[in-house]
Amino acid sequence: MEVIGILEKYSENVQKEINAALSTVEPEALQESSLHLVKAGGKMIRPALAILSAEAVGGKAEDAMKTAAAVELIHTFSLIHDDIMDQDDKRRGQPSVHVLWGDAMAILAGDTLFSKAFETVLWTEQDGVDSQMILSALQTVVDSCVKICEGQASDMGFAEQLEVSEEEYLHMIYKKTAALIAAATRSGAILGGGTKQQVEALTEYGKLIGLAFQIQDDYLDVVSDEENLGKPVGSDIAEGKRTLLVVHTMEAASPEDREELITILKEKSDQNVPRAIEIFQKYGSIDYAHHIAHDNVKQAKELLTILDDSPSRTALMMLADFVLERSH
Amino acid sequence: MEVIGILEKYSENVQKEINAALSTVEPEALQESSLHLVKAGGKMIRPALAILSAEAVGGKAEDAMKTAAAVELIHTFSLIHDDIMDQDDKRRGQPSVHVLWGDAMAILAGDTLFSKAFETVLWTEQDGVDSQMILSALQTVVDSCVKICEGQASDMGFAEQLEVSEEEYLHMIYKKTAALIAAATRSGAILGGGTKQQVEALTEYGKLIGLAFQIQDDYLDVVSDEENLGKPVGSDIAEGKRTLLVVHTMEAASPEDREELITILKEKSDQNVPRAIEIFQKYGSIDYAHHIAHDNVKQAKELLTILDDSPSRTALMMLADFVLERSH
Repeated sequence: MEVIGILEKYSENVQKEINAALSTVEPEALQESSLHLVKAGGKMIRPALAILSAEAVGGKAEDAMKTAAAVELIHTFSLIHDDIMDQDDKRRGQPSVHVLWGDAMAILAGDTLFSKAFETVLWTEQDGVDSQMILSALQTVVDSCVKICEGQASDMGFAEQLEVSEEEYLHMIYKKTAALIAAATRSGAILGGGTKQQVEALTEYGKLIGLAFQIQDDYLDVVSDEENLGKPVGSDIAEGKRTLLVVHTMEAASPEDREELITILKEKSDQNVPRAIEIFQKYGSIDYAHHIAHDNVKQAKELLTILDDSPSRTALMMLADFVLERSH
Repeated sequence: MEVIGILEKYSENVQKEINAALSTVEPEALQESSLHLVKAGGKMIRPALAILSAEAVGGKAEDAMKTAAAVELIHTFSLIHDDIMDQDDKRRGQPSVHVLWGDAMAILAGDTLFSKAFETVLWTEQDGVDSQMILSALQTVVDSCVKICEGQASDMGFAEQLEVSEEEYLHMIYKKTAALIAAATRSGAILGGGTKQQVEALTEYGKLIGLAFQIQDDYLDVVSDEENLGKPVGSDIAEGKRTLLVVHTMEAASPEDREELITILKEKSDQNVPRAIEIFQKYGSIDYAHHIAHDNVKQAKELLTILDDSPSRTALMMLADFVLERSH
């Protein structure tokens, strides 16, 4: 089965849960703004990871279906609020929610999706799932929400901070990106009735592919092309972002090269993107990021070997590789 | 016991739970912005209602303590986001969070408090409370969060809507203000082990005093004085807000008076506040609002008679009256 097939297998049922959650929202403007990015269509990787994790430990897809939908709702909530904070005007090929409805309604749409996410997890009770398991799944999901906020706050703080260590950077992307992916696999494993060892392995798997996902983003920004990226090569440089390439170079470079890179990042323009890439190359930072992303995926797949072989385990292996294969 | 004593009795323990929830938040800017309004000090009416409801049905204060803190966290989250949306620059005598940290950090501070609220309810497990009860309390709290968002969206929509019926208005304030107060009393009653009848009575009590609270606000805006209100008399009129006074007058008034009131509300200035008050008086709208607030409080207190007499029930009776006594 192709990766696209894996993602499509569950997306219709996940979509049904999301629509059920949002169908009662009023007034109309709040419902429409809440549904906007859902309708624009995401890849639904997180819900697939939750469901596959439930199945891979011997559970049923249905037990994790509502929590899978909840994780997608949380992802969407964070996109809406991030777009306001970062003043990003486009998302999923559409104008952002705040562009269409204004900041006030966009804040509320995010808050609504956030509330609905927890409500959706709680609805798992209707599927006859054990209360204790639901509470554990909720704890997992809530914990990732705190981390998403903390990660975004750190990311914003980095913009004013010259020296960001690799450790600080990895801690930030763990919270901002990987924690929710780990919450998807962990809550899926919990609701599927996994053993403690299985739950921990799938949590770590989620964390590792989440980190790889973000690092691969950093890497592709300088090695891919505009058509694949859907944005100009070196956008991260032009925006002055702290990526793993920047962090690695800053730790390895000569005072002169550090100085030059800092100057380029502060310019917030694309005129010196090629020069920044040259500096990254000089210190092997591009290869380094590529290596780290691959290594995380390799470790993630190794963790899955404690699970019995099954189509769901195979699908999780393929999704780990997909993190590296995707072009944007 | 005075009302102030009732509120102070639990506020220290509630504050401890809130501080415990926020003590681990990082980076520093996120923790400080999340704590800002908590430190500025609220009256802590909602937590007191949750705890008293638990006690009034024969439960222990401790069983509802974390959920009481969670309700206060949700209230604070909604204040932070509302202040961004409504561009209110002051809150609790302090500059608003977005004034001090900017909109982006204020959005995140709200999201953090929101996440922490759910985490705090989940921590009730540590107190040995039954899982099923925690899930019911969570359902109650989550449901009120959805309603807060819907109520705020409706309130924003009313600004562009000339005709707002009394029913629409009451539905809006139920969602925006009363639902969380009802969630406080309901979740308290659930966690205190109340019977179905007790839980329903305390839910309705919370809803009624919540409605009375908002309607009394509308009333005080035109009958109190600047010193007591902490803002000029008739601010609601100067801001063009749809209050119960406006809604009642619009339904009862002659076409000419309606026209004039609409014109004044559209001006968004304080120059015709006295004339608007004259129109309200002509149609008995001020007395009407006063009567509705009192009637809601009376009904709320009657509902409490199904509970056994206890100091907590007496305190709930007093808090109902306090809604009308407060001057701002």
